Amino acid sequence: MNDDATLPDALTFEARLDRLAEIAVKVGLNLAPGQEVMMTASLEALDLSRRITEQAYKAGASLVTTIYGDDRATLARYRLARDESFDVAADWLYDGMAAAFRKGAARLAIVGDDPALLANEDPEKVARANRARSKAYQPALELITTSTINWSLVASATPAWAAAVFPDDAPDVALAKLWDAIFKASRVDAADPVAAWRDHNAALRKRRDMLNAKRFRALQFRGPGTDLRVGLADGHAWMGGASPAKNGITGNPNIPTEEVFTTPHAAMTEGVVSATKPLSYQGTLIRDIRVRFEGGRIIETSASSGAAVLERMIGTDDGARRLGEVALVPHSNPISQSGVLFLNTLFDENAACHIALGQAYSKCFVRDDLSAAELDAAGANRSLIHVDWMVGSAETDVDGIGFDGSVAPVMRKGEWVD
Amino acid sequence: MNDDATLPDALTFEARLDRLAEIAVKVGLNLAPGQEVMMTASLEALDLSRRITEQAYKAGASLVTTIYGDDRATLARYRLARDESFDVAADWLYDGMAAAFRKGAARLAIVGDDPALLANEDPEKVARANRARSKAYQPALELITTSTINWSLVASATPAWAAAVFPDDAPDVALAKLWDAIFKASRVDAADPVAAWRDHNAALRKRRDMLNAKRFRALQFRGPGTDLRVGLADGHAWMGGASPAKNGITGNPNIPTEEVFTTPHAAMTEGVVSATKPLSYQGTLIRDIRVRFEGGRIIETSASSGAAVLERMIGTDDGARRLGEVALVPHSNPISQSGVLFLNTLFDENAACHIALGQAYSKCFVRDDLSAAELDAAGANRSLIHVDWMVGSAETDVDGIGFDGSVAPVMRKGEWVD
Repeated sequence: MNDDATLPDALTFEARLDRLAEIAVKVGLNLAPGQEVMMTASLEALDLSRRITEQAYKAGASLVTTIYGDDRATLARYRLARDESFDVAADWLYDGMAAAFRKGAARLAIVGDDPALLANEDPEKVARANRARSKAYQPALELITTSTINWSLVASATPAWAAAVFPDDAPDVALAKLWDAIFKASRVDAADPVAAWRDHNAALRKRRDMLNAKRFRALQFRGPGTDLRVGLADGHAWMGGASPAKNGITGNPNIPTEEVFTTPHAAMTEGVVSATKPLSYQGTLIRDIRVRFEGGRIIETSASSGAAVLERMIGTDDGARRLGEVALVPHSNPISQSGVLFLNTLFDENAACHIALGQAYSKCFVRDDLSAAELDAAGANRSLIHVDWMVGSAETDVDGIGFDGSVAPVMRKGEWVD
Repeated sequence: MNDDATLPDALTFEARLDRLAEIAVKVGLNLAPGQEVMMTASLEALDLSRRITEQAYKAGASLVTTIYGDDRATLARYRLARDESFDVAADWLYDGMAAAFRKGAARLAIVGDDPALLANEDPEKVARANRARSKAYQPALELITTSTINWSLVASATPAWAAAVFPDDAPDVALAKLWDAIFKASRVDAADPVAAWRDHNAALRKRRDMLNAKRFRALQFRGPGTDLRVGLADGHAWMGGASPAKNGITGNPNIPTEEVFTTPHAAMTEGVVSATKPLSYQGTLIRDIRVRFEGGRIIETSASSGAAVLERMIGTDDGARRLGEVALVPHSNPISQSGVLFLNTLFDENAACHIALGQAYSKCFVRDDLSAAELDAAGANRSLIHVDWMVGSAETDVDGIGFDGSVAPVMRKGEWVD
């Protein structure tokens, strides 16, 4: 095992970018020869998307199609479009993506949005546009959340994101720092990055198997501003690291990943929870979130900024007020230890224990063939959204509560008890 | 009328680009408020596509979605992909476009491809990839060729295109020259460009109405290397300039346009025709095309370069050997007079009389409600391709042949007779 045999001096930026592209294709997607790739990326991620395209063809992709988003086009819409525009989405494009997935395409998304892109736009318009987009995306998203296909997220640094993360640095310094943090978190510098990911996946699998052996009924979170009991779905299974999709391909849906996670029961969360990091939601930073659950449903919210966006987010549908995921991440992991607040869920969720409002992952069950009615009965939540937010810190304690009422310590001060 | 009141000194490059974007939206699409826009563009056309996006939102677009193509990704595929890749197309994306059109979206395409992009690639792979793409695009293309929706093509200069057009100039000079030629051909410099287009459309309409009044049975082309009789489809109608789509919107499908055109009879072209300009087809330049028709079908071909690509092109299907369009363009028009060989059909077809192999436009008929069977019976050609090539010059004579055998001069030495 050779995770830590890094080669920082030997690798140029371009070489690290190529390695990230290789990890995205070989570890993230574990692309099958002959498989089609549907990629989404911001125009600012062009360098990485082109390298991923090359790596995908090298790995045997039949065709790589990239749909580019453009922040400037998005802003032009908010500045210039008629009011009715904000209830419209490109449903034809999302339906097309779903069709691609149904015929076997893998899905890669490059993330790295400007966390404050829409901060100055009308939150009501932002919410309406997101709602329309979420609704249009639902058929495609379902094929992702049910792991019908192999899919993965990987990140590309952008100047706007870097400026938000490192506001005190010059633009080029901030960008270089963010890239460095992304490369490190994505295990790009290991002597053999693909082998390093194999070892890391084995470690996550061990933790996941331990939690599955315990078969808890609920988890109890305690920390500053948090006293929350999260009921787990009936027949839930813990997942983490590489996971097999229904198409038989075992990839890593998130690059990086440090979490093990499962499906809570949509009606069985009680108590109060306080976010331990700001949440960047569709262009707005929501700070100091604190909510109260009763019967699995949020009944009170507060936030020191972005409260209106939070309210609109949880107003998307009934499921947006309920939990669809709970995840355990030790505070000592490399992303947390970097001390960087990435303002991006893909990274920040790997720095801390977290919960997600909205759609549950149907794959987080012992049985992988549950019908929609069976998933409902087991407590799997349904929603147009799936939004992770951080509730763990170095002060977080987690207990597992058994069906016999027994209480077993799972984490103390943010670290695994074992 | 003020077509020629140009303001060359008053307009910056940016202002001309904004005007081209405005023409694309207001003249090309004649976008209806609330209409969605599906745009395709090369990444190199980003500046123009963003300005079109702005103009579209200003004109009331509900949503503008741009699908960007990337030459480097295309080349990566030819360099790295497995052989089977070249029979695959993103059918899910083209089906999505067709779905967008069916629900009312307008379609704008920014052209400006590198005419030699695929010149060094295996022509067989190029042909297979184009065939797969054409097949996938067919349902969407049909909604365009039948004018079910308003659509338009507009051009953006690119360094590779400019280098091909102006090989003796420095790159920045070539690019500036090509932009200037595009702006002039697109009537960007008129005092009021939208009004100039209104006047130009009226002039084309007058010529079109005159040809429709004559109701010729066939056209006879004569010139160096050309002695060709093109039978016209039964009930054909001449079109040109602005034309109403079936959705009730009258736009200009081509920016620029100087042609009047109609549908030939697929089985009634006889004789020999020589191209008067090179044809840029899917990345290859085909020079000195000369073909012989018998019974409407090409039975002999030759070309001084690109002959294999020509053979593969006309081998796409039976309709690829037959005519789907015939167009008359006076030699004295501004694009021809510029002397620039654009190596791009959108421009070069407006410099000369031309014919197209492949799919006919069903809109070029007196009746606009012909069934597929009626179109077949009238002689409208069917094919996966539609490729225009230039057969007119300052030496071209065209006669119109009436149903009574009468012969009327239509053009002499490339100019209208009237």
